[in-house]
Amino acid sequence: MTYCVGLRLDAGLVMLSDTRTNAGLDNISRFGKMFSWEREGERALVAMTAGSLSITQGVITALNEACARAEAGEDVESVLTCDSLFRAAQLVGDAMAAQQRRYRERLEEAGAGTGASIILGGQRRGGRARLFLIYGAGNFIEATEDTPFFQIGEHKYGKPILDRVIEPSTPLPTALKAAFVSMDSTLRSNLSVGMPLDLAVMEAGSLRVDIRRRMEQDDPEFAKVSGAWGESLRDAFARLPEIVF
Amino acid sequence: MTYCVGLRLDAGLVMLSDTRTNAGLDNISRFGKMFSWEREGERALVAMTAGSLSITQGVITALNEACARAEAGEDVESVLTCDSLFRAAQLVGDAMAAQQRRYRERLEEAGAGTGASIILGGQRRGGRARLFLIYGAGNFIEATEDTPFFQIGEHKYGKPILDRVIEPSTPLPTALKAAFVSMDSTLRSNLSVGMPLDLAVMEAGSLRVDIRRRMEQDDPEFAKVSGAWGESLRDAFARLPEIVF
Repeated sequence: MTYCVGLRLDAGLVMLSDTRTNAGLDNISRFGKMFSWEREGERALVAMTAGSLSITQGVITALNEACARAEAGEDVESVLTCDSLFRAAQLVGDAMAAQQRRYRERLEEAGAGTGASIILGGQRRGGRARLFLIYGAGNFIEATEDTPFFQIGEHKYGKPILDRVIEPSTPLPTALKAAFVSMDSTLRSNLSVGMPLDLAVMEAGSLRVDIRRRMEQDDPEFAKVSGAWGESLRDAFARLPEIVF
Repeated sequence: MTYCVGLRLDAGLVMLSDTRTNAGLDNISRFGKMFSWEREGERALVAMTAGSLSITQGVITALNEACARAEAGEDVESVLTCDSLFRAAQLVGDAMAAQQRRYRERLEEAGAGTGASIILGGQRRGGRARLFLIYGAGNFIEATEDTPFFQIGEHKYGKPILDRVIEPSTPLPTALKAAFVSMDSTLRSNLSVGMPLDLAVMEAGSLRVDIRRRMEQDDPEFAKVSGAWGESLRDAFARLPEIVF
């Protein structure tokens, strides 16, 4: 499985993904699930993928090819040249739908799933930071003030902390900690989600990926938050009032 | 859906279930999912059910009928008369398998699921407190020193706290708090799990259900733990070290 979380805050975007994939429990691999496209000072986009790896790799390849062809002067719309983030989400959705059309019947015959989803976050000059969740059919939804985050993959373990902490006004350093804690709870309870992690942070208005970091098993910053959180949880739990019936 | 958690500790058993059922999102009802059988001083058992309500109600009815027939002097084995807790788990499993056989084909034709599972905990005179998880096929596993708890239904939200806190040596008051916190996280993040709750506590060796309590929306003990936990989490989160890249 997978766990990816994207937060859309007034202060910018935080994206965090794991790197574990599995085809059955006995076939575990490491694949990056975070991809970025950047034209510094004009736009920056980050995508995170979950679900069928063959499908999502096909989607990313198609998006990259369109970027390369546009770059080479061809008349092709790409996530780096399109008019809006909304249009970029449509392009991702269309690439997803094309992959699904191409493989669904064959995969279903083979008894395999084609389920996949993508979180896309980014900002372009003149626009605001936006976050989309693109489904397997290519349709998508956008994060709003009411729900400023999206999760894909194994989302349940790490949802309670986000429900409690994340609001649009949450500052980036706090959001980063919440994403770490959310990932930590997931890593701890579900073997199908694993280190290393990929992190991207885009401050609102910077129009670039300000932080892009692969965090290995021994990453000191993740370990610091994970350790402190575990200790605080035990402390908090120990201080709970006694139940009296 | 459902959330039920059963903890098997050296000090006894803690069982906690919600009461929400749904047939689709627009058809939500309240059904108790906790059932108990008691012969004070000789044995006490508590079962909690998840999955197809028609299946699990049928299982409970069959178990109750066997108890009533045994009580009336018929030569019928029941969970109250059988030789061991292990045998009681077999009887529950057999009742489950009978229900599945009776309805599976018809339910599958109707496109409905027959998935169901049951947590059974209890103790009889001369035996130790035991906890079983019975699957839809009637097979079952038993909680051990390594894994002293079982969850059924929406288990993911409330698993991290159990993973961190519950060991066989955990005292009952602490285990009770952990069960409350686990339920609180689930209630908060998943609408298909809802108050009121049903709680049962069996101290090791007491051979009765020492606490059996329906906790309504405004239950002061649950509210106390839920409120204190929410506050402690926010405090703990606020005290996390800053992340520095």
